[in-house]
Amino acid sequence: MAATKVGTICVIGGTGNLGAALAKRWAVAGHNVLIGSREASKAEEKATQLNAAHGTNIQGHDNVSVAEHADLIVLAVPFSSQASILNEIKAAVQGKIVVDTTVPLKPPKVMRVQLPEEGSAAVIAQQLLGDDVRVVSSFHNVAAHKLATDAEIQCDALVFGDDKDARQLVVNLANDAGLRGLHAGVLGNSAAAEAMTSILIFMNRHYAVDGAGIQITGTLDISCHDA
Amino acid sequence: MAATKVGTICVIGGTGNLGAALAKRWAVAGHNVLIGSREASKAEEKATQLNAAHGTNIQGHDNVSVAEHADLIVLAVPFSSQASILNEIKAAVQGKIVVDTTVPLKPPKVMRVQLPEEGSAAVIAQQLLGDDVRVVSSFHNVAAHKLATDAEIQCDALVFGDDKDARQLVVNLANDAGLRGLHAGVLGNSAAAEAMTSILIFMNRHYAVDGAGIQITGTLDISCHDA
Repeated sequence: MAATKVGTICVIGGTGNLGAALAKRWAVAGHNVLIGSREASKAEEKATQLNAAHGTNIQGHDNVSVAEHADLIVLAVPFSSQASILNEIKAAVQGKIVVDTTVPLKPPKVMRVQLPEEGSAAVIAQQLLGDDVRVVSSFHNVAAHKLATDAEIQCDALVFGDDKDARQLVVNLANDAGLRGLHAGVLGNSAAAEAMTSILIFMNRHYAVDGAGIQITGTLDISCHDA
Repeated sequence: MAATKVGTICVIGGTGNLGAALAKRWAVAGHNVLIGSREASKAEEKATQLNAAHGTNIQGHDNVSVAEHADLIVLAVPFSSQASILNEIKAAVQGKIVVDTTVPLKPPKVMRVQLPEEGSAAVIAQQLLGDDVRVVSSFHNVAAHKLATDAEIQCDALVFGDDKDARQLVVNLANDAGLRGLHAGVLGNSAAAEAMTSILIFMNRHYAVDGAGIQITGTLDISCHDA
């Protein structure tokens, strides 16, 4: 069983690269995981694939259904779909924790930082879902294709959120996924990690890196703070 | 002699922690370095101190004088002073390279990302100085007290700028200062590193770190791109 007790996790956009990789890692770690997609059949198909490859028991359905059945909802969709999908699942996620992974990339200039007027995609999510949803953001900087493997990943997951308990839960989930989860402050601070993704995309191209990541350096006294 | 040929470097705000540490490291590396302050006497005093401690030949004078005599001007002042000091030296830096290190911190909430409306402090500098100045930004994430030592520093210097030659020069200068300088894209991308500083200040407090930094992970093929 996984160390972190969160109940059922669903990943909206779970057929995408990041969503499927997160779902796989959490399921392997012992979590109960659902993946959602706009079309239930696509989510079911992806779940079957993942289960066959990893011996997991992931189930797939449409986005609203999985959001209704989950205790913690992870959003892993392109920025261009963020608002519409959050509106779809808004009623289903009231009173719950939503983990937003959205990076505000505006193709084709994905190597340029283009933060939204609201400051960050995470803040957009909070404004859209309302105060009864505890929004946390993370997983902006990890390369999805690395997360899809079983290999160790040299990338920290900076975790942002105004609710410390919810944030701690997501720090633990990052650790369960084989990353190092780190508290990084209030939800609005998410701008830093969201912006950093464009830098990493730039680095991948400029320095021919296969999935650059970031690590916080210095000796962090993690034992004091992470339960 | 230093590997990078940049002519004379001046550090505006060279009596401050970051400015003095950069000036010291570059002088030790063999560069010709001036430090500026609002009061010439303070700059002279700081230069004398640094020279006595490190066997360097740094000279100090008022901000405008050093900017006039330098080929490359480094700005290392608090955000609250950025605009006024840039206006003071504006005439003296036309046609030159200005390296802005400004982080848009708004005390007392320095653990919160509070990017300016313009997007970044670096973009403010470019708008203020005009198109005949090549603005590059860097050194946002390095702990000044670590830079003040002779020790190796585990922190990358992300370097932003629209002019690639000027950016390359600053990548080299970061290397000369004992950091790993990395091209990080256009000047507007500076928002990512400027925002990250608030995250690092948060980490320092939350995890009891003595000067957290960042490193880009992944295998970077630096030889292809850095002369």
